[in-house]
Amino acid sequence: MTNDFTFTIHARDGKARQGTITMPRGEIRTPAFMPVGTAGTVKGLYMDQVRQTGADIILGNTYHLMLRPGAERVARLGGLHEMARWPWPILTDSGGFQVMSLSALRKLTEEGVTFQSHIDGARHALTPERSIEIQVLLDSNIIMQLDECIRLPASDEEVARAMRLSYRWAERSKAAFERLVKPGDGRALFGIVQGGTHPALRRESAEALAALDLPGYALGGLAVGEPQAEMLATIEASEPFLPDTKPRYLMGVGTPDDLIESIARGIDMFDCVMPTRAGRHGTAYTRFGKMNLRNAKFAEDKRPLDEASECPATRDYSRAYLHHLTKSDEMLGQMLLTWNNIGYYQWLMREARAAIRAGRYADFLAETKAGWVRGE
Amino acid sequence: MTNDFTFTIHARDGKARQGTITMPRGEIRTPAFMPVGTAGTVKGLYMDQVRQTGADIILGNTYHLMLRPGAERVARLGGLHEMARWPWPILTDSGGFQVMSLSALRKLTEEGVTFQSHIDGARHALTPERSIEIQVLLDSNIIMQLDECIRLPASDEEVARAMRLSYRWAERSKAAFERLVKPGDGRALFGIVQGGTHPALRRESAEALAALDLPGYALGGLAVGEPQAEMLATIEASEPFLPDTKPRYLMGVGTPDDLIESIARGIDMFDCVMPTRAGRHGTAYTRFGKMNLRNAKFAEDKRPLDEASECPATRDYSRAYLHHLTKSDEMLGQMLLTWNNIGYYQWLMREARAAIRAGRYADFLAETKAGWVRGE
Repeated sequence: MTNDFTFTIHARDGKARQGTITMPRGEIRTPAFMPVGTAGTVKGLYMDQVRQTGADIILGNTYHLMLRPGAERVARLGGLHEMARWPWPILTDSGGFQVMSLSALRKLTEEGVTFQSHIDGARHALTPERSIEIQVLLDSNIIMQLDECIRLPASDEEVARAMRLSYRWAERSKAAFERLVKPGDGRALFGIVQGGTHPALRRESAEALAALDLPGYALGGLAVGEPQAEMLATIEASEPFLPDTKPRYLMGVGTPDDLIESIARGIDMFDCVMPTRAGRHGTAYTRFGKMNLRNAKFAEDKRPLDEASECPATRDYSRAYLHHLTKSDEMLGQMLLTWNNIGYYQWLMREARAAIRAGRYADFLAETKAGWVRGE
Repeated sequence: MTNDFTFTIHARDGKARQGTITMPRGEIRTPAFMPVGTAGTVKGLYMDQVRQTGADIILGNTYHLMLRPGAERVARLGGLHEMARWPWPILTDSGGFQVMSLSALRKLTEEGVTFQSHIDGARHALTPERSIEIQVLLDSNIIMQLDECIRLPASDEEVARAMRLSYRWAERSKAAFERLVKPGDGRALFGIVQGGTHPALRRESAEALAALDLPGYALGGLAVGEPQAEMLATIEASEPFLPDTKPRYLMGVGTPDDLIESIARGIDMFDCVMPTRAGRHGTAYTRFGKMNLRNAKFAEDKRPLDEASECPATRDYSRAYLHHLTKSDEMLGQMLLTWNNIGYYQWLMREARAAIRAGRYADFLAETKAGWVRGE
């Protein structure tokens, strides 16, 4: 790996870290939340708005993009940044998770996975090598290895088998990455630690991956329905074996509470559909907790979601109007609540970073939770 | 009526007129296209964008707003401008058209119409007086009389009966307006000429309404499925009997071609769901004609819809991306195409106004149509 992708830690507070990832397309201030732009768009938002909320990086889904418009087509259109008008860093997942959750007729072998598209039923294959190739065609900046995401519950043997297969795929991913990406272009390959909620398996996975000396590591296979306590325990069991100097990415997480608790346990990066999906379904995340805008109590509430916010969606529109738009299934309601939610998540990361720098992360965590409980 | 609502004609070219309506909330440059904000939102757009395209006035639907959130509630929220964050002029229709097209179990008498809400089945009544009251509660600036919109085809007797009933409702509307609106506050009541495609009935309707000396007049009951030639012939048959010094509003019209042909026949104002609805269904209106972005020919077309446009939606996003978003049913595709379409309609009105002022409206009309046919 090269100096073009660097991670610098500026401050620590307990296990929490505040750092900066630097790469040619921009800097990522960590802890960072990456809005999910599944199919080349963060649903319901203009990229200008996404940027304005404070997002340094967005996530694209390899599974969706390989099926439509297709990786080669995205490449001919100049790559994902150019197509979607987001010139800053992009992380893409490997496609593995959505193959398991969305597609039909999956068949998994040592070689990779074949599946049927959920869009048109066409057959596709994904190997560790093809996943890297697709992500390079998309012009991704942080590339994830293909891993096997098993459905839970599963036996210990099954969890171990999938974790070890994922490790072998990490080795193949690294070799493919080194063939396809020229050194010094600032792209990075992240490995994915698996092993369910078994500390020993997580340790084995983390140690093996650490030996590959990749520029970053993710925790996969969490936030798939287990209680929050189990997820946090698994982070705690894995963290000591993740290289301290590399960014740590908790995939697919989570609620605001999940985020700030995970940051306290040493996580640097997150992605989740929650703020965008919840926004489309009438839910606003705020300093005062979650608000369901469908609730009749908002029908004549002239206050904005939070008058102290700098996000126009949060500050400038009355709850009564948001209630009306939501009840009427108007697109603008979805647009505004999504904007508010991404704005809130980015605000929360900004505050977390400031708290770590100030050495008051524990207080920040307690105050933030108290605010959600207290309401207004 | 008062000086607070004025209409000044600056230039004429044949029957076409270029003028300005002045009222306390702002000026309306005519010919004007009013984007439709049915339920207090122009679907898929921020009001800032609507304004930026050049819209001087938007339309709100009394039928939708009286059912949800309710006229009294809108009034308690400070009126429609305040609720929806559009401080400029608003025209509201009377509710009559949607009662006929959307609601169930309608019953029409001399007094008014009772109907069942299409949302929850609740029974409601609308009289000329209640329609004015609702529009005042909404804080509408241009208020439309309740009229009877019959379904076509209908017998001559039926068309005449509905037209005469609509006239009697205009008289009652005027009386209600004068009771509810204090003189000099800049609000205006427009009468609606009916009479189907019968020149004699249109003349009778226009002359009777003209005698009421209302500040503006609309042509109703057109663009309901008849061929364009019949619509234009009806405008020609009505126009001589509409007061020359009052704005003339062609309700629910239409395509870009309908607009520029109607302007040539003396129409000053339009509203239509076409640009917003078409945008949600993948259609872009442009200088080069209509484009269906679902068409595979756009899949790798890197050009924007029209690089010469000042509208970001039209100028900054590739057709390939719009194709992808549209095929993927992504909200952003609907948002961008709606923005483009409202932008194009406003651009067309701007060009029409300039052509009238320059005395070259016939050339403008021919060139615009040639552009649609020629394509790129």
